[in-house]
Amino acid sequence: MRGENGKVFLIGAGPGDPELLTLKAVRALAAADYVLIDDLVDRRVLEHAPHARVVPVGKRGGCKSTPQVFIEKLMVRLARRGSIVARVKGGDPFVFGRGGEEVLALAAAGIECSVVPGITAGVGVPASLGIPVTHRDVARGVTFITAHARDGGAPDWAALARTGTTLVIYMGLQRIDEITAALSAAGMAATPAAVIERGTTDEERAVTGSVSTIAALAGEARLSSPALIVVGEVVRFAKKLERGLPLRQSA
Amino acid sequence: MRGENGKVFLIGAGPGDPELLTLKAVRALAAADYVLIDDLVDRRVLEHAPHARVVPVGKRGGCKSTPQVFIEKLMVRLARRGSIVARVKGGDPFVFGRGGEEVLALAAAGIECSVVPGITAGVGVPASLGIPVTHRDVARGVTFITAHARDGGAPDWAALARTGTTLVIYMGLQRIDEITAALSAAGMAATPAAVIERGTTDEERAVTGSVSTIAALAGEARLSSPALIVVGEVVRFAKKLERGLPLRQSA
Repeated sequence: MRGENGKVFLIGAGPGDPELLTLKAVRALAAADYVLIDDLVDRRVLEHAPHARVVPVGKRGGCKSTPQVFIEKLMVRLARRGSIVARVKGGDPFVFGRGGEEVLALAAAGIECSVVPGITAGVGVPASLGIPVTHRDVARGVTFITAHARDGGAPDWAALARTGTTLVIYMGLQRIDEITAALSAAGMAATPAAVIERGTTDEERAVTGSVSTIAALAGEARLSSPALIVVGEVVRFAKKLERGLPLRQSA
Repeated sequence: MRGENGKVFLIGAGPGDPELLTLKAVRALAAADYVLIDDLVDRRVLEHAPHARVVPVGKRGGCKSTPQVFIEKLMVRLARRGSIVARVKGGDPFVFGRGGEEVLALAAAGIECSVVPGITAGVGVPASLGIPVTHRDVARGVTFITAHARDGGAPDWAALARTGTTLVIYMGLQRIDEITAALSAAGMAATPAAVIERGTTDEERAVTGSVSTIAALAGEARLSSPALIVVGEVVRFAKKLERGLPLRQSA
């Protein structure tokens, strides 16, 4: 235990593959007294924190969860005791990771916090299939979006379609029918699309098709969350997976 | 030299800080016979490739550059000789990194290629200022876009404004007047904005303001490329930099 306040590292562990952890994250884990780790993060990242006490936290959609406020209070309490706390999240803490809220809660309590970025699923997962999220010939940018909004409203899919960017939809599988219907109404029915479950991990599974076919294909393949939906001409770059796991392709 | 074809690792080195390299990138560098490294990548990443021959390549805007086709031919030639080639780019290879083109060129030549994702500037650089690119109260997603398109056309700024996503504009500083005028015309004049030069490095400098003021602030501070423009309510989360370099704030 340290005499003064400790500190919190808010760490992004990347999309799944534990080798996509950064050197900065490894250093923070090695310094940690406590590791608060989300459900979806591969436990092999804990090899970098052999001396830390591990506290499983996290909020898996629809399942038993640790309330956000409990996590924030626990971080504050541990840091006030002088501990170094590594809070490990999947992907990047600031891309749909609620990292902004945790940083504010820590600041309000006077606790020092460092954010260690991670590779967000929206970049790393399509890459695992050979899909570049931007390509100067076919996609002038990329948009990461979630179908879940706090206010319950849906995204402006028509505006998103008009941007000319690749659309990467996080946490969208449960609403894929609604999302693809809206994108089809916005003129994107024939645009290539993919659904990728557990991208970059050994359990990666994916289907590719078009906006009009992808919901049925994902259903037939019984894909489940966590999964990412990718919509855009760049999906044409998807290759058969080399590691022998099923990638179903269909125009 | 190996008997059969070698292989190419297309590696994203992250936004600047050499500690934001992934373990996977470190392993690929350690295996490399040749490292082809872009101008903007911190040379300290080469510490992980002590036995490799280093070939500086890269295309800095407006300066002397190595043509893309030369880089692709060099990778093919080295891999055909049986060498392991690490092609190291800033950020992520598939986010404005022309990685898609290089993967296709290698595939056409029958060369094996693995993509090692990196932390793209659009996520890592705002985080360095404490800015989360998404936040469920104020930004339902994030769009990475470039003002440079191959066809010369400008992005549909009005559609982008309507998406309700944070806008992160890569390589936009030279056109900041035009970009902020278009965003102002789309109703975003009062939206918070930041320009961040060399984010996550020791030379990081930044200004924050609004869409209507940020071009003048960036000019007064003499910010230069490489720089990122961030537009959205999330910019209000920006904090004073802790490492003592200038962050100018203005409403």
